[in-house]
Amino acid sequence: MSEKTYSLEMTIRTLLGNKRYSSIKDILITLNAADIAAIFAELEPEILPLLFRLLPKELAADTFVEMDPDQQQLLITRFSDTELKEVIDELYIDDAVDLVEEMPANVVKRILYQADPETRKLINELLKYPEDSAGSIMTTEFVELGMGYTVEDAIKTIRRTGFDKETINDCFVTGPGRTLEGIISIRSLILAQDDDKVSDIMDTNVVSVNTMDDQETVAEKFKKYDLTAMPVVDGENRLVGIVTVDDAIDVMEEEATEDIEKMAAITPSDKPYLKTGVWEIFKHRIPWLMLLMVSATFTGLIISSFEEALAAQLVLTAYIPMLMDTGGNSGSQAVTIIRGLSLNEIHFKDILTVIWKEVRVAVLCGLSLSAISFLKLMVLDKVGMLVSLSVSLTLVVTVTIAKFIGCTLPMFAKKLGFDPAVMASPFITTVVDALSLLTFFSIAKAIIGL
Amino acid sequence: MSEKTYSLEMTIRTLLGNKRYSSIKDILITLNAADIAAIFAELEPEILPLLFRLLPKELAADTFVEMDPDQQQLLITRFSDTELKEVIDELYIDDAVDLVEEMPANVVKRILYQADPETRKLINELLKYPEDSAGSIMTTEFVELGMGYTVEDAIKTIRRTGFDKETINDCFVTGPGRTLEGIISIRSLILAQDDDKVSDIMDTNVVSVNTMDDQETVAEKFKKYDLTAMPVVDGENRLVGIVTVDDAIDVMEEEATEDIEKMAAITPSDKPYLKTGVWEIFKHRIPWLMLLMVSATFTGLIISSFEEALAAQLVLTAYIPMLMDTGGNSGSQAVTIIRGLSLNEIHFKDILTVIWKEVRVAVLCGLSLSAISFLKLMVLDKVGMLVSLSVSLTLVVTVTIAKFIGCTLPMFAKKLGFDPAVMASPFITTVVDALSLLTFFSIAKAIIGL
Repeated sequence: MSEKTYSLEMTIRTLLGNKRYSSIKDILITLNAADIAAIFAELEPEILPLLFRLLPKELAADTFVEMDPDQQQLLITRFSDTELKEVIDELYIDDAVDLVEEMPANVVKRILYQADPETRKLINELLKYPEDSAGSIMTTEFVELGMGYTVEDAIKTIRRTGFDKETINDCFVTGPGRTLEGIISIRSLILAQDDDKVSDIMDTNVVSVNTMDDQETVAEKFKKYDLTAMPVVDGENRLVGIVTVDDAIDVMEEEATEDIEKMAAITPSDKPYLKTGVWEIFKHRIPWLMLLMVSATFTGLIISSFEEALAAQLVLTAYIPMLMDTGGNSGSQAVTIIRGLSLNEIHFKDILTVIWKEVRVAVLCGLSLSAISFLKLMVLDKVGMLVSLSVSLTLVVTVTIAKFIGCTLPMFAKKLGFDPAVMASPFITTVVDALSLLTFFSIAKAIIGL
Repeated sequence: MSEKTYSLEMTIRTLLGNKRYSSIKDILITLNAADIAAIFAELEPEILPLLFRLLPKELAADTFVEMDPDQQQLLITRFSDTELKEVIDELYIDDAVDLVEEMPANVVKRILYQADPETRKLINELLKYPEDSAGSIMTTEFVELGMGYTVEDAIKTIRRTGFDKETINDCFVTGPGRTLEGIISIRSLILAQDDDKVSDIMDTNVVSVNTMDDQETVAEKFKKYDLTAMPVVDGENRLVGIVTVDDAIDVMEEEATEDIEKMAAITPSDKPYLKTGVWEIFKHRIPWLMLLMVSATFTGLIISSFEEALAAQLVLTAYIPMLMDTGGNSGSQAVTIIRGLSLNEIHFKDILTVIWKEVRVAVLCGLSLSAISFLKLMVLDKVGMLVSLSVSLTLVVTVTIAKFIGCTLPMFAKKLGFDPAVMASPFITTVVDALSLLTFFSIAKAIIGL
């Protein structure tokens, strides 16, 4: 795909040089909005307004939605008022809200000024919902049917009003005061008889979310119930919007990225990496590094307190990194548990099953690793029986501790209402490091008799 | 949700005790298939066949699809031939294929025997596609329209054949030899005039995948183009199936889990953790632990070779864990890059931008960390100017090296066709550990003059 857009980018450059605008238009209209946006991203900003004006109105709006915020901003500043109005009129309300959230204040002012009064009101209402709430990602452009409608009425309504709805695949049936009563798919409508009553064939067992629910809840319900659109209701069960599956997919991706970032001890950020400034990246990373560095000083204290023992058997020092790393890696493998917890495949009630499983895996891993390293220490390093024994024994204990902590820490974190992802490898490693050093020195002291 | 299913579980148990089957049925039919499956998962296997028989045919099949493989197997063994046939007839072909892939050979034989000949043929064909290919996740139940159809013909076709299609929201237009010519949404059909020609209003700019494409490609295209269904074609562009968005979402989740597991040095597995045996988990983890342990011996060699210097200044040993951990954590934070690479937000051509950004972030992080630890070493540890200076200087260098390696290693891995996720924290940590020790001892030697 990226190769295809690359060669098209060259063609468009050449055609631009020869001022063959109608040929450029012919090429662009055969493409999807996402591909056009990808090509635009590679071109010099100065030529964008010219190219953008070649696109038919609807494709232009779709492409605009797919573009990066800085390119959107550039286009808006170059647009005439009429052009801006045309684009905004074509946008779905949720995309308009996203745009307003990304733009600086002066651009927002211009956008709201050009939007028609009803759109402006809607945008302002949606902006009030907290970030990452269902209300903030919903759209208000859905097909609403009355309880008394027949299938024929419903299809007529869709034909009349469907043009500017984000989806017509699911229609929402409301009663007095716009309370949500049911949901009916276009499939059921098409397959039904004209005089069937919508209220008889609609699905009354509706999966919905509240405007204030977290967007993660929305994504989870989409996954669990295989939906393509989900109604959003307010505290009185009044239908105020819908979330469509494409937006739910974006949320899922965002949440997975967030989990991965937390697991690596980074404060998650919404912005793509390449668009984020050095200072901002620094601020997302330094608190965790600082916290982890401070907690790592405990391991230093442990070493200091065994300094005499170490001085007597300096060779032990050489195995500290290997033991720490192996402990850390064994603990990190607990992400399987963390992922299972965030996908709701593992629950706190499974804790004993999980611990019992992990302990057995740990013993197997520990014994294998310790056998290999015992041989290595005896044959290659030639450090003698006592040191080899100390290192190997420590490995078994360390791996077991690491796996035990790696699985219990995230489960208790979740139980206590924390995000288990934050308990991932860096934290587990820090705890495991201290414990493995303590084990190592205690075992060495006992065996070698330092 | 889990609380709701929990209390329902209790109610159902009580009603079962009192043999109030019709009340149980009344409760179950108000629920979604996913919720019923969740309740069933909590109940004793022996009572499942009884409960399952209470469900209406369609809901029964939907619930069956949502259940765990071992529960499905149990039900199948308890089903009469007629019951089995009824469930299989209701399944969509892709769900039937999933089922056959999960069941042991004797159960598969019974399933295929009960399936009608056409279904059996389809299942066998779909089973031939390689695991994780588009062909293996597609369904063959889609609405196919001819090039000569009017909108009226199309809607009649949908009304006649739509009942057993997986979706009617997108219909697929084929020419001679079933070549894919275009795609048309039910929305366009509903909003068009009855005598419009389908070939005039269909979208000819179709995003499709080949049967042999990886399922990851399918998921990426769904995300990029905001699709709800995607056609799957063979080598001659003949339409052979479609993938619907709910299956694409499952793929996205699977791929994110795989990435997370690889980042933690685990061979990815398709099975949920709780269903995987100890021996299998062991096999997925031990190769990486072994490999990483062996490579960690290099750090041991480095320490051994500086043994004399260490003996002279044993206090340095106490700072080894902190330096290694901070280096490792700084390197791990590069997952932002790895995630960006797998989401195609970062490309190899950005490598200089990325390095330049990371180096600046690294210097900022390194300086902050080193300032704090210099103060700590001087004031709290009282180890003297030279040791404090050595540790602080090493921190700056280590953090910079870690961030440099953390961003370049995954980018080169991707460039060379490897999965960047495999280059994540454990590998980066191992390399960074060795380099930070080397730095530490070299700096200490130079400054303290050991």
